[in-house]
Amino acid sequence: MHYPSKLIEEAVDAFARFPGIGRRTALRMALHLLKEDSHIADSLASSVTALRHQSKFCQRCGNLADATLCDICRSNVRDQSLVCVVADLRDVIAIESTEQYRGRYHLLNGLITPMDGIGPEQLNIDSLLKASEEGTVKEVIFALSSSMEGETTAFYLGRKLEALGIPTTNLARGIALGANLEYTDDLTLGRAIAQRTPYSTHSKD
Amino acid sequence: MHYPSKLIEEAVDAFARFPGIGRRTALRMALHLLKEDSHIADSLASSVTALRHQSKFCQRCGNLADATLCDICRSNVRDQSLVCVVADLRDVIAIESTEQYRGRYHLLNGLITPMDGIGPEQLNIDSLLKASEEGTVKEVIFALSSSMEGETTAFYLGRKLEALGIPTTNLARGIALGANLEYTDDLTLGRAIAQRTPYSTHSKD
Repeated sequence: MHYPSKLIEEAVDAFARFPGIGRRTALRMALHLLKEDSHIADSLASSVTALRHQSKFCQRCGNLADATLCDICRSNVRDQSLVCVVADLRDVIAIESTEQYRGRYHLLNGLITPMDGIGPEQLNIDSLLKASEEGTVKEVIFALSSSMEGETTAFYLGRKLEALGIPTTNLARGIALGANLEYTDDLTLGRAIAQRTPYSTHSKD
Repeated sequence: MHYPSKLIEEAVDAFARFPGIGRRTALRMALHLLKEDSHIADSLASSVTALRHQSKFCQRCGNLADATLCDICRSNVRDQSLVCVVADLRDVIAIESTEQYRGRYHLLNGLITPMDGIGPEQLNIDSLLKASEEGTVKEVIFALSSSMEGETTAFYLGRKLEALGIPTTNLARGIALGANLEYTDDLTLGRAIAQRTPYSTHSKD
């Protein structure tokens, strides 16, 4: 593409560096900033700078934090002995949005991915094992994606935690609520049949 | 959504203000900045600020410029009497990328859109009419979208330029090169039949 000015080319380059943002979308974003009031561009620049330079991470679980510990690890209404292991922050936000979970989290900052050279030592695992050794953890829930990487990571952690005598659980897998059977993939449907649950007319949900 | 820190919430808000960027994509962008080296965030912030505060617009055509006039209006290899009227910068970039056009541009900064209260007086039209009156324009090409707004704008300008004795032309409309007839919409196909062009075995393309 031919850009009429160096400034717009640099802005397009900066936006197009994000995963999933192509040069056409990046150009649309740059033109939006040019058209709108300048405080829109200023507030974007200052939030980006603040996010990158002032963000702190919880020393216990790896979550984003405003202090040494995150809001969840500091909370005294949450069960600090129930630990939900997730890959990253997006999963914390997704689970928190359900308002169904009252324990704490542990962020691995990724999953074991041998293809990309990411092994257990690149992940935030030690502090989880340390807390488990110290006896402050009574259950670990694996909330990892059901991909090869997620399964590998759960298996690795499961073995370590088993050795420490910590009970581990997995998220329930099955047919999504409200989903049509005919559109459910074969693997999910097959597993849902194999792992069927007792039915009761006195629903507990 | 529940965000674990104020900083990430503000960054998500800033990204989600762009048209076409939802909160989920905005979150992915914010997390990307957190994960990558800090110079990625710094260069984004500085390009955004530079783009908004240092960008200049060509006083003649409205294109982005590094000086009083844009590169195209300053060029002495381009035909300055041939003017291509476009809605905005994206169209200039698209036409320049074809490397087929050697005239100059005139950016309207929008199209006549009565529904949004955008009339001719909100658009960059006066300087085009002034140049036409001064006799520096020998042809005006309308490169506007074939929507209701594009047609209305072309009609309005066409009448004004006709009164000044300036010849106007429209982009050729028809079936896209390489397109399948069966997938071409009815309107385009109908118009392509009505406005068929002489066929020659001595192709001029």
